[in-house]
Formats: sequence, C-alpha cells, structure tokens
Amino acid sequence: MKEATALIPQLTVDCIILGFHDNQLRVLLLRWKDTSFWSLPGGPVRQTESVDAAATRILRERTGLGAIYLQQFRVFGDEVRYSLEEVQEKLKHIFDPAIWYKRAISIGYYALVDYSKVTPLPDAYTDECRWWDIRDFPTLLFDHNHMVKLALEALRQQLSWQPVGNNLLPEPFTLPELQRLYETILGRSMDPRNFQRKMLSLGILERLETKRRGGAFRSPYLYRFIPEKYEAALKEGNLMIL
Amino acid sequence: MKEATALIPQLTVDCIILGFHDNQLRVLLLRWKDTSFWSLPGGPVRQTESVDAAATRILRERTGLGAIYLQQFRVFGDEVRYSLEEVQEKLKHIFDPAIWYKRAISIGYYALVDYSKVTPLPDAYTDECRWWDIRDFPTLLFDHNHMVKLALEALRQQLSWQPVGNNLLPEPFTLPELQRLYETILGRSMDPRNFQRKMLSLGILERLETKRRGGAFRSPYLYRFIPEKYEAALKEGNLMIL
Repeated sequence: MKEATALIPQLTVDCIILGFHDNQLRVLLLRWKDTSFWSLPGGPVRQTESVDAAATRILRERTGLGAIYLQQFRVFGDEVRYSLEEVQEKLKHIFDPAIWYKRAISIGYYALVDYSKVTPLPDAYTDECRWWDIRDFPTLLFDHNHMVKLALEALRQQLSWQPVGNNLLPEPFTLPELQRLYETILGRSMDPRNFQRKMLSLGILERLETKRRGGAFRSPYLYRFIPEKYEAALKEGNLMIL
Repeated sequence: MKEATALIPQLTVDCIILGFHDNQLRVLLLRWKDTSFWSLPGGPVRQTESVDAAATRILRERTGLGAIYLQQFRVFGDEVRYSLEEVQEKLKHIFDPAIWYKRAISIGYYALVDYSKVTPLPDAYTDECRWWDIRDFPTLLFDHNHMVKLALEALRQQLSWQPVGNNLLPEPFTLPELQRLYETILGRSMDPRNFQRKMLSLGILERLETKRRGGAFRSPYLYRFIPEKYEAALKEGNLMIL
C-alpha cells in the first residue's frame, strides 16, 4: 500500500514464520481486524532500512524474537499476483482502497524459530496472531497460500545441503527427535540407521553424557549442535551431501 | 536509473550468465562505452512485465538465446550497496548523473547456458560483450563482484540437490565430462566411482550406444538426460541426495 512516509514504492516483504511443536510444523498467521480473513505477516520496506532489516523488524514485531534465522527464498514479481479488487473490498473497513498500489513486488522470507520462545503478537490492523498446523490452515488473502507452498519447497531443498535443526529444535535433542523434524519437513519417512550415520558423519553434533528419560523404550542420547563446527562446515561447503 | 517510461521505481535485475567451455566456467560481462569499466548485464523492470520476464528479456538481448535456464538467487537490498558518486562520475559521458536513483534494490539471477550457442551482444551503452574466465575477470562496477561470488555459492548449493548439467553441457556427454563440470563448479575433485554411482542412481541419464572416440585412453560411453525422468524426479524431490 502507498504511504506518505519514506517507503520504497511498490515493494513489500512477506514472512513465512515456521515453528516445530508436537511433531508438527506450524506457520504463524494474522487475522485482519473484524474479519475472518487470514494472511502472512508482512509490510513495506523503508527507505532507511535494508530489505533484510525490514523482514527482521516484522518478525520481531510479531514474535518478540530478536535473533531469528531468516532466509530470503523468492521474489514474487508477477505483473498480476492476486485480485486487487478483492483485497480492497475485504479490507475497506481498515484501509482506504486508494492506498493500495496497483502492483507490488514482494520478497518472500521464511523464518525458522524455536516455537517455545515465541509470543505471537497481533498489530494495529489485526485481531489475532497464532500458529496453524502447516497441513491445515485457512485460505489466505493475496497470493499467500502460494507463498507458503514455495517456502516449504525452498526449505526442503535447503535441508538437503544444510541442517536446520539448530533453529527449529530446542537443544538438547535426541537423534529420533531430529529425524522426526526432517521427516515432517520432507514429508516422507527415513531409515533411522542411515539418518543417524549421515547426520553424525557431518561432525557437527556433540553427544552429551545424559540421555532422554521417560520414554517407553530404551533412552536415547541427547545431542546439541557444536556452533563453531557447524559454522566452519557451512563455510567450507562440507554440509553438502554429494 | 530513473526514466520517464513506465518502470518500477528503484528496482533492477542483474544477471550472472554462466557458460562452460574448455573445462572452465565463464561469465558474460559488458564493457561500458568508451571506458575500461565492466559490469554484469542488467536493467530496470517495466510496469508491464514480471520480474522474471525482465531477466529473460535482458538475457535474450545479450545472448540471443530464448529458452534459458534462469534462477533467482538473491535480492540485493542493502541501503547502501556501492558508491553512487563513483558510478555517476565514471559513466557521466553516457548518463546524466541525475538519472540515477539514490537507492536501488536489485534482484540477482544466474543463468546457465550452452556456451556454444551464445552470440554475445553489446547494447547501446556498451562497446563490448564477452566471456571471462570465472577465476580471472576484472573488478566490476557497482556491487557486481559481490553478486558473482554469491551466484556461484548459490549454484554450488543447488548442484547438491539438482543436476544442472543439462543446461551447461552440450548433449551427448560422457560421465567424465559431467564430472569435470561438477568439479569446476564445486572447486574440488571427486572420486570418479562415487560420482558415477550417485549420478546413475538418480535414473535420469540415458546411456547411448555410441562412445566418445579419439581420447588417449579407453573410449567412455555417451549419455544424455532423459527430460521426462528428470522432470518427474525434480517434481517428486527425488533429486535430493540425503
């Protein structure tokens, strides 16, 4: 939308904020004031901030988190992305229809956050901000359903060359827990032995002396990522599987 | 730069066009008129074209190629990306310094092309368009050296989950030729047996009846990608290595 303040014209960012809880991947959505319409958190980019900083700002406003794993994954730059008339009509009680640009280019980010640390916060234009199961959430305004779909595809691709567990799983975790995260994101089951062998061969996990207690079966060891090893491997491209 | 025609303000695309020749990866660069200054092909986005279409248009203008493998890899959105004063000064014989935006956001694309099919073409603002070895090319204007670096990183990551040989190598090719392409992009040598095993296990290569003749050693078989198998595997995510 157009605003009088110093914004970059026709440019927005939209954020797919993902968290992992109860073995399910969840996405953070906003419900517009006095409506049943949901969409992703997003907004314009200021002339005095980088595009990345705009995404970081929006994330902080919605989740309360400062240091968040953010990844640009795609520019949504089609000439017609959605029905402008429909959006103008549905949100006319909040925004003057004249405020919208005829065309906006949106830069999509996905964020991986530790679910347990997030306090979802609506803003001045929304009544509700909450997590939805990624397998079952409402039809969204704009082209936001399409954005979520492509964000998940990008995340799956990224997962094949870069472990993301350190952002989505609270530490310490067991290898079966890490595997369930992978299986949820990739949407397929994996062989536990292969998974364990490949993950440990990367040399970025530290096994703790303690085990996870309380399960029905034998207690698995707890692990944490070794930040310096992870960073070094990432830098050298050693996290690639091929 | 600002123009009177219908362009999206403050938005550009820049293209890292890569080709493979003589076992080396090359990048296509332009030399500005009456200068020794080089940069990547790029330009503004029209209000009546998608961002992807703008990149496709620029590629076609520079290479003569229509169907090209193009990949958005990154938005360059920092508030200050380079010294505007330096660019204004160096190109003032071509552009009125007032034509430049104080700030522009650029969407970076890399393109993988069959080197043998490209006829490099300068435009109205440039004297020369030619291939440079990726290991040895001039310092570029703007933040274009940084862009090339990040494009190569993105290509390396992509290579770990998606074979790109069908865009960079003329068909048919031998497995050692495909391996050299991988080694050049990844910047490291690979074990021939492992490479051959992994590549063939993807089920996307067809072995032809003919062999490559004329080498000093035994003649290796020729291969081509099976387009329908490649597309299907890509769609199902089966090209991921993990």
